[in-house]
Amino acid sequence: MYKAPVEEIAFTLNHVAGLSDALEIGRFGDLSPDLVDAILAEAGRFASDEMAPLGDIGDRQGARLEDGVVKTPDGWPQLYRHWREGGWNGLTAPEAFGGQALPHMLNVATLEMWNSASMAFALAPTLTMGAIEALVAHGSDDLKAIYLEKMVSGEWTGTMNLTEPHAGSDVGALKSRAERHADGSYRVFGQKIYITWGEHDAADNIIHLVLARLPDAPAGTRGISLFLVPKFLVGEDGSLGERNDVICHSIEHKLGIHGSPTCTMIYGDGKFGDGTGAIGYLIGEENQGLACMFTMMNNARLAVGMQGVAIAEAATQKAVAYASDRTQGRAPGSTGPQMSPIIEHPDIIRTLLTMKALTQGSRAICFACAHAIDMSHHLEGDQATHWVERAALLTPIAKSFATDCGVDVASLGIQVHGGMGYIEETGAARYLRDARIAPIYEGTNGIQAIDLVLRKLPLSKGAQVRTFIGELRDIAQRVESLNAPGFGSTAERLNASIDDLQASTDWLLEAQASGRVAEALAGATPYQRLFGLVLTGAYLAKGALVASEDGSGEKRVSLCRFAAENMLSETAALKDRVIAGAESLEAARIVLA
Amino acid sequence: MYKAPVEEIAFTLNHVAGLSDALEIGRFGDLSPDLVDAILAEAGRFASDEMAPLGDIGDRQGARLEDGVVKTPDGWPQLYRHWREGGWNGLTAPEAFGGQALPHMLNVATLEMWNSASMAFALAPTLTMGAIEALVAHGSDDLKAIYLEKMVSGEWTGTMNLTEPHAGSDVGALKSRAERHADGSYRVFGQKIYITWGEHDAADNIIHLVLARLPDAPAGTRGISLFLVPKFLVGEDGSLGERNDVICHSIEHKLGIHGSPTCTMIYGDGKFGDGTGAIGYLIGEENQGLACMFTMMNNARLAVGMQGVAIAEAATQKAVAYASDRTQGRAPGSTGPQMSPIIEHPDIIRTLLTMKALTQGSRAICFACAHAIDMSHHLEGDQATHWVERAALLTPIAKSFATDCGVDVASLGIQVHGGMGYIEETGAARYLRDARIAPIYEGTNGIQAIDLVLRKLPLSKGAQVRTFIGELRDIAQRVESLNAPGFGSTAERLNASIDDLQASTDWLLEAQASGRVAEALAGATPYQRLFGLVLTGAYLAKGALVASEDGSGEKRVSLCRFAAENMLSETAALKDRVIAGAESLEAARIVLA
Repeated sequence: MYKAPVEEIAFTLNHVAGLSDALEIGRFGDLSPDLVDAILAEAGRFASDEMAPLGDIGDRQGARLEDGVVKTPDGWPQLYRHWREGGWNGLTAPEAFGGQALPHMLNVATLEMWNSASMAFALAPTLTMGAIEALVAHGSDDLKAIYLEKMVSGEWTGTMNLTEPHAGSDVGALKSRAERHADGSYRVFGQKIYITWGEHDAADNIIHLVLARLPDAPAGTRGISLFLVPKFLVGEDGSLGERNDVICHSIEHKLGIHGSPTCTMIYGDGKFGDGTGAIGYLIGEENQGLACMFTMMNNARLAVGMQGVAIAEAATQKAVAYASDRTQGRAPGSTGPQMSPIIEHPDIIRTLLTMKALTQGSRAICFACAHAIDMSHHLEGDQATHWVERAALLTPIAKSFATDCGVDVASLGIQVHGGMGYIEETGAARYLRDARIAPIYEGTNGIQAIDLVLRKLPLSKGAQVRTFIGELRDIAQRVESLNAPGFGSTAERLNASIDDLQASTDWLLEAQASGRVAEALAGATPYQRLFGLVLTGAYLAKGALVASEDGSGEKRVSLCRFAAENMLSETAALKDRVIAGAESLEAARIVLA
Repeated sequence: MYKAPVEEIAFTLNHVAGLSDALEIGRFGDLSPDLVDAILAEAGRFASDEMAPLGDIGDRQGARLEDGVVKTPDGWPQLYRHWREGGWNGLTAPEAFGGQALPHMLNVATLEMWNSASMAFALAPTLTMGAIEALVAHGSDDLKAIYLEKMVSGEWTGTMNLTEPHAGSDVGALKSRAERHADGSYRVFGQKIYITWGEHDAADNIIHLVLARLPDAPAGTRGISLFLVPKFLVGEDGSLGERNDVICHSIEHKLGIHGSPTCTMIYGDGKFGDGTGAIGYLIGEENQGLACMFTMMNNARLAVGMQGVAIAEAATQKAVAYASDRTQGRAPGSTGPQMSPIIEHPDIIRTLLTMKALTQGSRAICFACAHAIDMSHHLEGDQATHWVERAALLTPIAKSFATDCGVDVASLGIQVHGGMGYIEETGAARYLRDARIAPIYEGTNGIQAIDLVLRKLPLSKGAQVRTFIGELRDIAQRVESLNAPGFGSTAERLNASIDDLQASTDWLLEAQASGRVAEALAGATPYQRLFGLVLTGAYLAKGALVASEDGSGEKRVSLCRFAAENMLSETAALKDRVIAGAESLEAARIVLA
């Protein structure tokens, strides 16, 4: 059974991602290290003891649609109530609306634990938090006054309605429409698909944020507006009124995250209300909906990255436990008649260490991204700009690298279990099924790679990424200076990989500058993975440096060395794909014709 | 919907794996190219038109256990009857028992098609064929006379019973027991798990091959005997008699291959018969059971490799079709207001080409392995020994590389579908679920790597593998000599990868020779993948050379070049892991303590 790795999470937050330094100089007001530890410990307890036991049943039962009502798995409504009563939903929300205004770093740390315990369950608050952010950033004071407090407390959940059958990655193609109404509200019509927790029985109201077009809107992405459409209409005093004209038409039969209802929502078809459409309220300005939605989406991308970390962590724990217990064959050097625990076989050791390194690397990348977001909120001027850019640069890497790791680590976890891994009751297969959506939603990892290469590398004319690479060089330099034998060839390996990153970055910036966009795009995905791998190596080294200085770090140092000497050699191949792969890719298009 | 790639299969058989040359010199008697084509065409028709439509329903319904009887999905018993009436079950079986004595190459080619259409369904004949081979090789004349004809026709199916709860990869740990009976038969007792098609309603009888220990047997693998245990006892005239004392206790709830019943079988618990145990008949000599079982297992490993090829092919077809149809965004260079088919986006092109190259590479490796098996049967003396060794060397690579490709390609296929890929009705997710077992059963891919490094590389003191590497050099040399621009830097890339293979091979042989077995084992899995990648590059080049000579091969040449310039650079990283990774792996064991 999953046990939240509270100590590892705290270490990574504090010593790799920068929380400790930030606390020391008072960047987060009077937030103390002790309070951080207490929050993490309590989250760990809740996730391990209360949430994880209900994860399996959620997978087996799934969400069920009965007469337009979605029933969540047995025990989930109570679990949700306990969870929100713990104050977890409003960790980062403004105090004015009942939130705790804590750093995002703490929120992603707790998100990891909720997702390890049950990714399907954790999706509900993940979407609510995104809706809160959009409303805080763009909503009118009236809307905020009516909706935010109950959303922050978690009494009401939120959703995000972008996708339509022919408008997925290409949001600009959406067709849902909205009409202005005499009273200043709007009427919304249309069908939305893949709406996570679009309908359920765990909260009193559901606040849908819906993208739609006004009749006179320009075509494409510049003609999209964002509307708040509550399931139940809300009086000015916050009381629940009539049912709004929005229904869940069906829920999807998915590979995983069975407990999370993925809904097709229909707005304004006349099932409820007076037949004039679903009543909605504009968020932000007309035709500026996409900018509002991006507020949600950016943090949602990091939250999805945390799903990858979470599944990788849970899958690794399960595999290590199984491999310690299961005996088969005799490991090299074993004596006596007994079979060896499979954790002593070199191939299993390689697999488990790879799982550990990917998990810790992904975690560090995501936490570093959250740190950048926090810094951007707590600093001003050029410093704020720097951190906004850093968060922007890290977001696609965090989302894609961590979610790919989630899938890869879950798959390796099945393999460690042998035949048992293929049996559903074991639970290893669920991790792969759940993990597999994360590289897809919130922008496929291919879309993230396009974003990284076309929009993030050019930030500050390339200065942001170059500064970042310089920081990674410093880490390698510190390993080199320390010259401790436990690190093996870490410094040399890490430097070589940073060279690969540097060369690929330069090549991509040059390709774009000279108008060779297709060539840059051909290398976008290998580049994204290259960046993630280098960060994994660098952050493991950063943690190992801290740990080695206080003498407690033999394990960290040896894992860092394993990653450097067994995983970083992949970066040369990735660089090669980036800078030398595009021509043959273009030439081979005929294969697909 | 899946359409069997008959032309591609024929090309690979003939021009890459060596069938054409063998036919030309009459190696397979009067088997003509026309007959080969006719067989492949008819298999393709059956797989595409009759079998594939029943694959989905098999996945949805699954096999069901009701009162000890296993019901296969709707339509499957009829499908099975049609299939066996086509003579497909006995393709390679001896003519004396009603088989067609055709080359294994044809059997693996048709196996690919059955598995693409429905891997769960194809498992039934796969197991039967293995049982036939064991019986042909080791059974007494009496057993052959009674059982083989009906097994070859497919009227009766076969199973393979090795695994017990504490004896999986380590077969020597099994505890099922057998007692000698006065009439020369045996009585078998014990529980076996993971028995594929152990019980079902699609055939009149099921012939179980069961490993068990005699009371006076030595411990470990040298004390195991193989028994034939029929579900229904069979008279000397072949008539069905009483039910034998073997039952299906339960079936597993698995990640995939839902239509294939995975049974826990109980022998001799007294549910049927006179309470003296399940009646069994010795196959081969007492205590020589493992050698008999290896006869089944070796070809079964290749058959599992074909499952990887099959899923990769089917997943690629589905992804290409979807990407051609689905429009989103605008690809670089596209003009006009329309969205582009996603197959025009560079990242999707990269993904689909990677899927194609892995599929074709895996297919070529598996077919080359089948060719080696055929040659070993049709030649004598040193030549036969050479081909026995070649088949032995190729088997673990075929099994592991192709099944890893099956998983990877199926996962990429989901990714190409975006959100649709996660919805079960789309069918892309089924491929991943089905594919995920193949790297596990018939010896996990980790076990294959151990086999490759410890048992196969040392064949003929390393001469077999060195000869093989020399043949790969010749292919690179031919590409170099041709010096055709379409090949890009294929020759150079392929040579560099062969260098990596050579260096890794030398290192592993030297490590073993000097007793550093743990170090060799630490690099076994990276080495196995390295070998598979080099073979992929070499076999794509071999095919491209043939195709370029007759001018029809622009597609083959460009895919070969794509693989060389985008995929082969991984071999350097793998070599590095093999020859420089073991020390850090050993040092990092403390991480798992």
